[in-house]
Amino acid sequence: MTLDAGKKADILERLLPSGFSFKGSGTAYAPSNIALSKYWGKRDAALNLPCNSSLSISLGAWGSKTTIDQSSTSQDEIFFNQVKLEDTDPQALKILAHVDLFRRTQNIPLRIVTSNSIPTAAGLASSASGFAALTLALDRALGLGLSTNVLSMMARFGSGSAARSLWHGFVKWERGIAPDGTDSVGHPVDVSWPELRIAIVPVDTAPKKFSSRDGMTHTLATSPLFQAWPDQAENDCTEIEAAVRARDLRKLGALAESNALAMHATMMAARPSLNYLTPDSWQVLTRLWAAREEGLAAYATMDAGANVKLLFEARDSDSIQTLFPNATVIAPFDNPPEL
Amino acid sequence: MTLDAGKKADILERLLPSGFSFKGSGTAYAPSNIALSKYWGKRDAALNLPCNSSLSISLGAWGSKTTIDQSSTSQDEIFFNQVKLEDTDPQALKILAHVDLFRRTQNIPLRIVTSNSIPTAAGLASSASGFAALTLALDRALGLGLSTNVLSMMARFGSGSAARSLWHGFVKWERGIAPDGTDSVGHPVDVSWPELRIAIVPVDTAPKKFSSRDGMTHTLATSPLFQAWPDQAENDCTEIEAAVRARDLRKLGALAESNALAMHATMMAARPSLNYLTPDSWQVLTRLWAAREEGLAAYATMDAGANVKLLFEARDSDSIQTLFPNATVIAPFDNPPEL
Repeated sequence: MTLDAGKKADILERLLPSGFSFKGSGTAYAPSNIALSKYWGKRDAALNLPCNSSLSISLGAWGSKTTIDQSSTSQDEIFFNQVKLEDTDPQALKILAHVDLFRRTQNIPLRIVTSNSIPTAAGLASSASGFAALTLALDRALGLGLSTNVLSMMARFGSGSAARSLWHGFVKWERGIAPDGTDSVGHPVDVSWPELRIAIVPVDTAPKKFSSRDGMTHTLATSPLFQAWPDQAENDCTEIEAAVRARDLRKLGALAESNALAMHATMMAARPSLNYLTPDSWQVLTRLWAAREEGLAAYATMDAGANVKLLFEARDSDSIQTLFPNATVIAPFDNPPEL
Repeated sequence: MTLDAGKKADILERLLPSGFSFKGSGTAYAPSNIALSKYWGKRDAALNLPCNSSLSISLGAWGSKTTIDQSSTSQDEIFFNQVKLEDTDPQALKILAHVDLFRRTQNIPLRIVTSNSIPTAAGLASSASGFAALTLALDRALGLGLSTNVLSMMARFGSGSAARSLWHGFVKWERGIAPDGTDSVGHPVDVSWPELRIAIVPVDTAPKKFSSRDGMTHTLATSPLFQAWPDQAENDCTEIEAAVRARDLRKLGALAESNALAMHATMMAARPSLNYLTPDSWQVLTRLWAAREEGLAAYATMDAGANVKLLFEARDSDSIQTLFPNATVIAPFDNPPEL
C-alpha cells in the first residue's frame, strides 16, 4: 500500500461501515462539471485537499454512467466506452485503486462498466464525472449507504473536482479546515437558472501533455504569484456564489472570467512558464472580448487545457453559434438524467 | 503648475544650480533600452518612482538625438523626425513640461530638434531614449553640469525607463528608498558582452491603446496577484545582474523570460484583464519554445506591447532569422554612437 493510499485508508476506517453486504449490482450516473470559481492548488496532495473553495455548474446530460456487477471471472474487469481496458492501463489502475478503498480486505472481483456521454470533440476531461459515478455505483453495489458528505469526500480521493459532480446544477466544494479533510466536501447550491447556457469552444482536443495534478504541483512550487491566489480565490468563490444566488449573469460572468484568468496567470508566472492556453485559445478570447464590446453578454472560463468555455443566457445562443460555429451549447438545467 | 510638476519643482530647487548661463546650443544622443528585469508599478506616480529595481540593455545605434538652440522666434519650436509639432500636440506638451523643469522662471524660447533612429516597423516606444537625449541636451545647452545621478533622476521625470537610457550596455536602475526619489537612479553595469544579440520580432506596430502608465495604474489597483510582484522583481533583478556579470546566457535568458512573463501575468489577472500580448505574440512564443526544445539558446522578453524581443548570441543569428524572417537583429555593443 502506498503512503497516499494508507492516509486515505486510515480516514476510511473511521468513516465507512465495518462490514458490507454485496448487493450484486449498482448503477449510477454523475454529470461532468465546469468550475466557475476554480480549484487550483492542493494543500494536501495525498487527500486532494484544495487551497481554496470552488463552485461549479454541472453539465446535465454530459457525464458518466457506471454499472458495477460481480465479475464472472476471478479477476476485475473494466470496460470504458465498450472497450475492455488492459490490466496495466493507467486509467484501469486508477479505477482499481479507487475501488480498493471501498472493497478493502474483501476479495470481490468486480465488473465495472462505464460509458461516457461527453463528446470526445469537446475535449473535456471525464475524470470528475467518472470518479463521481464510480463512487456512487460502489456505494450502491456494496450497500454502504454512505452520507453525501462521505460520498463527496470519497469522490475527491479519485479526482478533486469529482467532489462537485454528485449533483446537478450549482455545487460548492468547501475548502474545509480539518487536516483529514472530512469537511472538504461538496454541497448543492439550490438555485435554478433554466436560461443559463454553457458553450464549449474546442481549441485542442488532444490529451493534455501536463496533467492538472502536475500543473498544480509545479505552480505551487515555482510560481511567485501563487502566494496571492488562495485568498483571492476564496473571496471570488464567495462573490460568485452571491452572483449565482442573484442570477446576475453580468456579475457572475465578469467574476468567473477574472477568476479563471487569475488562475492561468499563476501558471504563466511559474518557472518555467506553464501555459495551457494556446495562441488559438487567445484568438477565441480576443474574438469574445470584441463581441462583448459590441454588447454581447458572454463570458469565458478556461481550465487546465486549451479549450474555452462560455457562459451566457439562452437568448444569445444564436449569436454564440454565429461567432463560434464549432461550439457546442449545453443547457445544464434541461432534463438532466436521474442521479 | 500642476501638483505633479510642483512636487518635481520642489526637488529640483534643491538639486539644480540656482542660475545658469545659456550656452547657445547643446546636442546629445541617447540609446533606447530593453529591460531584462522589468519595471512595472510606481510607488509614486508623480515622480515615476518604481516599486522595484530594473536592469536593461541599451540598443546601441537605436536611439534619439536631440539638439537644442535658442529659438529664432519668441516661441518654442519642436521638431520630431523633421516634422514641426503643433503646440497642442500631446508629445510637444510633454516635451515642454520637461523643458520647463530645467528652464524654470527664465524665459528662453528654444528650438528643440529630435531625430529618432529606431525603425518605425520595430514598434518600439521612443520615450526612454527621447527623454534621456532631451535631458542630456538641456544640461549641455543650459550649462548646468549636472551629475549623472541628477541627470538620471531628471530623465525619469519624463519617462521612468529613460532613467536607464543615459548609458550604453547594461544599466541598473535602483529602486531607491528615499521618498523624494533622489536615490532612484540608473548606473551602468560594467560588463562587455560583444556576442550578445537582441532581436525584435514585430507583431503589432500600431500605437498601443493603453499606455504603460495607465497599465501600471490599473494593475496596481485591481490585480490580486500584483502584491507578490515587487519582492519577486527585486529578487529577479539581483539574480539577473549576477547572470549578466557571469555572461551566462542560459541563466540570464531563463530569468529574463520568467520575469517578463510574471509581469504580464500580473496584468492578465487585473480586473478587467489587461493583455498587451496578442494571439500573434503567443504564436511567436510558441515557436520560440519549440525551437528551444530543439536546443536553440534564445529567450523572450515582452514589454507593454505585442512585440516579442529575443535574447541570444551571435552564433545563433542565422537560426533566429530563419525562424523569424521579419525580425531585426541588434548588436548592442557594436560601435555604439558617442553619448
